[in-house]
Amino acid sequence: MRYLKLTVAYDGTDFCGWQWQPQQRTVQGELEAGIKAVTGEQTRLMASGRTDTGVHAIGQVVRWITQSKLAPDALVRALNANTPRDLTVKEVSEAYEGFDPVRHSTSKRYRYLLLDHPIRDVFARHGVWQLWKPLADAAMHEAAQALLGEHDFKSYETSGSPRVNTVRELYDIQVERRQYDNGERLVIEVEASGFLYNMVRNIVGTLVEVGAGRRPITFAADVLAGRDRRLAGPTAPPQGLYLLRVNFDDEKPGQATS
Amino acid sequence: MRYLKLTVAYDGTDFCGWQWQPQQRTVQGELEAGIKAVTGEQTRLMASGRTDTGVHAIGQVVRWITQSKLAPDALVRALNANTPRDLTVKEVSEAYEGFDPVRHSTSKRYRYLLLDHPIRDVFARHGVWQLWKPLADAAMHEAAQALLGEHDFKSYETSGSPRVNTVRELYDIQVERRQYDNGERLVIEVEASGFLYNMVRNIVGTLVEVGAGRRPITFAADVLAGRDRRLAGPTAPPQGLYLLRVNFDDEKPGQATS
Repeated sequence: MRYLKLTVAYDGTDFCGWQWQPQQRTVQGELEAGIKAVTGEQTRLMASGRTDTGVHAIGQVVRWITQSKLAPDALVRALNANTPRDLTVKEVSEAYEGFDPVRHSTSKRYRYLLLDHPIRDVFARHGVWQLWKPLADAAMHEAAQALLGEHDFKSYETSGSPRVNTVRELYDIQVERRQYDNGERLVIEVEASGFLYNMVRNIVGTLVEVGAGRRPITFAADVLAGRDRRLAGPTAPPQGLYLLRVNFDDEKPGQATS
Repeated sequence: MRYLKLTVAYDGTDFCGWQWQPQQRTVQGELEAGIKAVTGEQTRLMASGRTDTGVHAIGQVVRWITQSKLAPDALVRALNANTPRDLTVKEVSEAYEGFDPVRHSTSKRYRYLLLDHPIRDVFARHGVWQLWKPLADAAMHEAAQALLGEHDFKSYETSGSPRVNTVRELYDIQVERRQYDNGERLVIEVEASGFLYNMVRNIVGTLVEVGAGRRPITFAADVLAGRDRRLAGPTAPPQGLYLLRVNFDDEKPGQATS
């Protein structure tokens, strides 16, 4: 069998998340339907991260095991002609036999877009979390640095999907304003060995408490130390979240936890 | 009576344009319903430009004649609480008696967003015209400069809404690449004393012919000189177009044609 690595982007607004569900429009369902249209194969894809309803992806990585002989570039064109407009296959490349997009990824990077402005931005409503008062971005960035390194992130996991091992290593976290032609955004980017359920959205919700002045700069660290979800800020809404990139060490598959 | 000037933004995707129509969702209809909810008044608004279905606005200017005594800031808040999420009132200010947002505007500025990339951008589909091959932006900019100044723009008017006077003065036209929060866009901005029906979209369609290499750099000038709509490029689709700004000389109302 041939193992392929697909890099996929989608606007999560009109999808019930990545994962296939009966009678729901999901990214996995639409992509598998596209593959069936192109190759006739009934396949079961696996993604690096199972994004929730409303969450977007810029660089989701998907494994496809196929008997198709089509070249990667031809597959990109054929799949894009057979998938809906809010989903796109950016790249197809050959992977090694046994490639596992969850277990072999060495890290994932997420982006979260915030806007802190009193007037509603009509173009941002499906892709940004808008808050109505200015946030103290420097305080948020400083608070966030306490999360760097290897920690038990149990406090930042939404219950319902408990993992046995809640230790993850956070490699990078940045909070900064970026100026775009369509306006300023407060951008939070987080890279880690793996993420617990809702971990990014819980980190963002916690940092917003600091940025809004409702909590001190030590709050993110205090929540981490407490190992109790009830300590963290509210879960940030899905529409600001983007799975930006999944990293692999193609030579030697890593041992990262999912 | 009190004359107010409203600066309004909207995502045109789900509106059948600005203008009120029976049984259609229009910007005017939603805004008049919001005003009725706030003040009880049944009013008839007038906009500087009647944008078509799918066309967006960042700075549409709307005249509202009212008996309300509420302060401008209170009206902004009240109207935003009583209008849908794809429409927003950015500013309310007092205007002089007799203020006419069409006849008294001195110029309008439109923006058009293009993307020239072979892979579908899922975040661009409601707000950008995506073309699949790279466009020669410098050639487009150069071609566009021939439109500057006062000309008969009859060739750039879509028939069906003929005006007696098709002379307009074009003050500025720029074609350049800019960074947006979801990637690069090829941006065309045009400012003129007034615009004929579909004039910006016909200019964009004509410049794209140049950028794609199907026509020479002199094409925009040749079309202008020909005074015949059949000479111009195809009309660019609505979703890339934004009414950016309407300019007024508040001291002495100008005599611009609509």
